[in-house]
Amino acid sequence: MECYRPPEVLFEKEKPYPPREYVRVDYRGLEEFIRRVFEAVGVGGSYARIVAENLVLADLMGISSHGVQRIRRYINGIVAGSVKKEPDIRIVSDAGATVLLDGDNGLGQVVARKAMEIAIERAGKYGVGLVFVRRSHHYGIAGYYTLLAAEREMIGFTATNTRPLAAYTNTMAKYIGTNPISFSFPRACPPPILYDAATTTVPVGKIEVYAKTGKPIPSGWLLDLEKGEEITGDADKALQAIREGKAALLPLGGLGEERGGHKGAGLALIVELLALTAGAAWAIHVGNTTTPGGANVGHILAAINIKALTPIEEYYERVERLIAELKKLPKHPKSDNIWLPGEKAWLTMKTRKKIGIPIHLNIYRDLVKLSQELGIQPPAPLEAHTQ
Amino acid sequence: MECYRPPEVLFEKEKPYPPREYVRVDYRGLEEFIRRVFEAVGVGGSYARIVAENLVLADLMGISSHGVQRIRRYINGIVAGSVKKEPDIRIVSDAGATVLLDGDNGLGQVVARKAMEIAIERAGKYGVGLVFVRRSHHYGIAGYYTLLAAEREMIGFTATNTRPLAAYTNTMAKYIGTNPISFSFPRACPPPILYDAATTTVPVGKIEVYAKTGKPIPSGWLLDLEKGEEITGDADKALQAIREGKAALLPLGGLGEERGGHKGAGLALIVELLALTAGAAWAIHVGNTTTPGGANVGHILAAINIKALTPIEEYYERVERLIAELKKLPKHPKSDNIWLPGEKAWLTMKTRKKIGIPIHLNIYRDLVKLSQELGIQPPAPLEAHTQ
Repeated sequence: MECYRPPEVLFEKEKPYPPREYVRVDYRGLEEFIRRVFEAVGVGGSYARIVAENLVLADLMGISSHGVQRIRRYINGIVAGSVKKEPDIRIVSDAGATVLLDGDNGLGQVVARKAMEIAIERAGKYGVGLVFVRRSHHYGIAGYYTLLAAEREMIGFTATNTRPLAAYTNTMAKYIGTNPISFSFPRACPPPILYDAATTTVPVGKIEVYAKTGKPIPSGWLLDLEKGEEITGDADKALQAIREGKAALLPLGGLGEERGGHKGAGLALIVELLALTAGAAWAIHVGNTTTPGGANVGHILAAINIKALTPIEEYYERVERLIAELKKLPKHPKSDNIWLPGEKAWLTMKTRKKIGIPIHLNIYRDLVKLSQELGIQPPAPLEAHTQ
Repeated sequence: MECYRPPEVLFEKEKPYPPREYVRVDYRGLEEFIRRVFEAVGVGGSYARIVAENLVLADLMGISSHGVQRIRRYINGIVAGSVKKEPDIRIVSDAGATVLLDGDNGLGQVVARKAMEIAIERAGKYGVGLVFVRRSHHYGIAGYYTLLAAEREMIGFTATNTRPLAAYTNTMAKYIGTNPISFSFPRACPPPILYDAATTTVPVGKIEVYAKTGKPIPSGWLLDLEKGEEITGDADKALQAIREGKAALLPLGGLGEERGGHKGAGLALIVELLALTAGAAWAIHVGNTTTPGGANVGHILAAINIKALTPIEEYYERVERLIAELKKLPKHPKSDNIWLPGEKAWLTMKTRKKIGIPIHLNIYRDLVKLSQELGIQPPAPLEAHTQ
């Protein structure tokens, strides 16, 4: 069987900009550092390792908004006591293929990884395992969990709600979350297919990237909550409006219904309803890492055992036929490539494993500060202070 | 518990236009007629009833593209022998909570309804039932199946692939289907929450509506396969381009990646991959009702037993709290209302059960012709030839 392999080229989905404000660090050293930071505040070794893996994977894949720059928020939550270091994660209901898990306010990564492990185990028994999670926290990048399923030759699925940042169709308020959805499908050779996307047109991180690179914001991204109009153009002003609570993200499909905004909003609402089914908070009730009593974030995670349905080799062969067809389609003249979901993230990971993960100097300085506070070694930059 | 009920007003999501070219017929008479048509070509009574319910529900809900106007395609398939009247629908693999069903080229509605019944039964046992379907045909509106789950106080999910009509991001060809996704969540009082939407920005039916009403096509809907530009403006020309194979539907999010087109395309691709996992055809290989050997459409259907997770009354109460919050949000000044997913379809159904289903005269004449061919009574119009 022919198996598609992405080209062996240096590629970064999100290039560090401006380049002189970044240092690059080796991903292994960074992961080790993150692990030690969590251990230093009292998180057990195996839990610290999970969070470190999850955060560094985000940076490797070019999703820096979910990478090590978030570390302070998690640490603050642990210090505040809202995030429990040693949660009593327990199964509340168990119907065999469906399980309700109570995260006991643990780190989202730890709780969700446990949930995916249960889902995979149950999928082995019943063909599918579906785990609802309540009383959890922000779980980092969703793709981390679905890739665990793909590694086991299963289809992975997850979704989570988040803090309210988006305006439901026809409203003028931040009510629903960016509520990402991820799917992963295993392949006969790497990379697995990995869909991992917010149900808003863009996450806030994308607007930050546009602000840094001076690119104008297109329509379909942001709603001015005072005027009811879309915010376009100056990305710095857009960021400012978000920070002042005067702007909301628009659902995938944009403002109103004409371009399908109600579809994106509907998908986000489905995620809130799944979280609510788990007994988690929904929409405006979702907290953050320092909310007293915990954020009560809700997740859903599932694994589907392909082998329970069809011989895995036949599945792999069909996937490769589809990919070969897709890659051979006439390419749009203004586009760079026909990409599989997750292919750019994969190439970015391969690249950054070679040349290092770019970390903005402000973030890097904060990591050094954190290392001093906790008495551990900071990650060493691969080169001098520029790259 | 307070339970939100939509206003008791006459409301049609899709108004018949131009009004003088329509007749209205009673939905019960129409359903009876459709049932008899299928019986007349040899479909068994219980199967004919399922197809009739599904088609008439589409018309009731204002999705006429999936209503009785499709009847000829199904009948042609049966006459051609590609669609089997008495299929041997059988379980190929069974892992308890996950089942693979072979539709034996039966009517999509019959096969998918059977699949949802299995999913509901398995969800009763294992908390979730997930049924993959291969060798099926077009199954009509997806919401029909998820509503079956909601009626049983379960969460319903389905997706299906379709004939290739859409351009995957960065390509210039019709490769993927419109691949609708539906979710339904039960509520303590009607209507259930019903999400039912194509993964393209719009289905072809929407362009037909714009053509009839003379409204210009906005950006984000259609790709000119010769020029690589978006088709906007004149809806008649747009329809013409589709018919000539010169235009493709754009995924939810539109052309390219800037407004999230890769997210819609990714969702559509996931549906193709799920169909492929079932052993069904994918993308360009999906046939229609008269394809020799069958269309080999793939579906996936699931039911989640809420009671296996949480006391149902608590679930209902949380749903109503969310809805009350949503309905009280500040409304966008240019919008008519804050709608729940499926609320407009529900109001349209209530309205059309009262005043009748509008059927375009061309379609009505064809139904009369069909009734003559088959020697059965046509549905009587509720009023004279205008409404």
